[in-house]
Amino acid sequence: MSVYTPVTEAQLADWLRGYSVGAPAALEPIESGIENTNYFVTTSQGRYVLTLFERLPAGELPFYLELMAHLARHGIPSPAPIADLSDQYLSRLNGKPAALVTRLPGKSLARPGERECAELGALLARMHLAGRSYGAYLDNPRGPKWWRVAARAVRPFLDAQALALLDEELRFQSLYRFPDLPRGPIHADLFRDNALFDDGRITGVIDFYFAGVDCLLLDLAVCANDWCLVDAARDLRLDETKTRALLGSYTALRPLAALERGAWPVLLRAAALRFWLSRLYDLHLPRPGMLVHAHDPEHFRRILEMRSSAAAPWVG
Amino acid sequence: MSVYTPVTEAQLADWLRGYSVGAPAALEPIESGIENTNYFVTTSQGRYVLTLFERLPAGELPFYLELMAHLARHGIPSPAPIADLSDQYLSRLNGKPAALVTRLPGKSLARPGERECAELGALLARMHLAGRSYGAYLDNPRGPKWWRVAARAVRPFLDAQALALLDEELRFQSLYRFPDLPRGPIHADLFRDNALFDDGRITGVIDFYFAGVDCLLLDLAVCANDWCLVDAARDLRLDETKTRALLGSYTALRPLAALERGAWPVLLRAAALRFWLSRLYDLHLPRPGMLVHAHDPEHFRRILEMRSSAAAPWVG
Repeated sequence: MSVYTPVTEAQLADWLRGYSVGAPAALEPIESGIENTNYFVTTSQGRYVLTLFERLPAGELPFYLELMAHLARHGIPSPAPIADLSDQYLSRLNGKPAALVTRLPGKSLARPGERECAELGALLARMHLAGRSYGAYLDNPRGPKWWRVAARAVRPFLDAQALALLDEELRFQSLYRFPDLPRGPIHADLFRDNALFDDGRITGVIDFYFAGVDCLLLDLAVCANDWCLVDAARDLRLDETKTRALLGSYTALRPLAALERGAWPVLLRAAALRFWLSRLYDLHLPRPGMLVHAHDPEHFRRILEMRSSAAAPWVG
Repeated sequence: MSVYTPVTEAQLADWLRGYSVGAPAALEPIESGIENTNYFVTTSQGRYVLTLFERLPAGELPFYLELMAHLARHGIPSPAPIADLSDQYLSRLNGKPAALVTRLPGKSLARPGERECAELGALLARMHLAGRSYGAYLDNPRGPKWWRVAARAVRPFLDAQALALLDEELRFQSLYRFPDLPRGPIHADLFRDNALFDDGRITGVIDFYFAGVDCLLLDLAVCANDWCLVDAARDLRLDETKTRALLGSYTALRPLAALERGAWPVLLRAAALRFWLSRLYDLHLPRPGMLVHAHDPEHFRRILEMRSSAAAPWVG
């Protein structure tokens, strides 16, 4: 359970006097999530998510909140931050930076199929097109620089085989930096649990707190490694039908450049490396007070091994 | 029917390529409304209203669109303008300035009761509080200056009794300008058909194209003259229960200053005068190509007579 900073109904009611969203009717802690404290908040006006930021650098928060606001006003179903009466998205609650965002309808899917992968691809393309006019900049906080920091930190916990895989992958990736790939704000963490569906249509993309500016293609690679597996529990190869659906609906709206088609296998590996490293880090170097069990790093180690040994995966 | 500028499905599909709202699925003309051409637009992503501005001064459009955006991001259920891929709310379609805004759920009510008047009052107060941080300025386009212009234009069409009422009211109002009343952006046209309800809750306030900066209290007076009548068809007195509900829920969130309580009877008359004049104007001086029958001015003439002869109406 992920409530690090409890909020009482009285504290919420008091805090909401600084907003125009009506009187509070319900307050319910959200059990998932690792980084922040989250509550569902219902008022006389609508349904919201309250987030207390536990550890994100305060200087980065405006990038995330303004990005969500930017995407929402372009018609992307991202949470829309609610401004308070001083016209700010960010305020303070119980000593933490806090924000209220709209709660989107729908539920995440454990086993998305071809149709849902196509929905995701189209949404991702529209998100990338809308993101082009976003003016703020934040380097992807989990990009190559962070890989090196994280790799140093987790080395002592790795066996020889894992060390070899890690070193080889860092060396391989350092040969490919692709400064010419189309870049822009990306979600960078669009796993199945960060997308909401209703009746087969995608109704929400949530949790933008790993977003940053990076290769647009990296967003697709992160999605493919989670959404398009043959079987997430047993067979981590990319399923051709689902992957083609994801890429096909994406490229119908934003065709890939030749350079991007060439970079696809490298970015699939980069996406696997990034999550292998962060899961290793969270497992071996948990933050004090961290309440959620870390995800198993082995899953992404196996994905990385598979992507780096496979013949270059096709592009749709 | 209010489609002055037809839009075909092919034209819509082409225009929507400049947006991030998905592919168009339906296009349906909206029959009501006088000022603009409106269509309901459904896409793979959501439900929207497309407006082509037929006669509003181009320089005023950003005030309206940015106001709606401002209120929406404060949690007010106003239509949220959708920005296009160049990050603009306003573009052009078939030679007209055009905008896409979210379509809100709910239906307007012909006969709102005490509960709905209370809902409206609370929403209006929240709207006024959220509007305080709105930075743009547009003098109420239907304020005292416009009354004088309109009065001159419609004089030739009035009988002696109407002329006397008009002149007396203009004289009376000129004695009360209330520069010290709290001011801000107001909707200024919040009739029953501009509010949407679902299951007893207010779910939308629409049509901000008469908004401007004026006394906040004028918004309440416009509402009272339409929402709180004993019987809109037969008895135009203010119903005490409904008026108290409107004012009570408003003042619970934004208490009225003493000066405002004193100004209430004057603003009820000002609100009646404004709509009497605009209906006279639309009846006697219709714009070429105007497709909708003008509303009957007599309704507001009778309201004005009643408000100016009654003892000062109470304030909740």
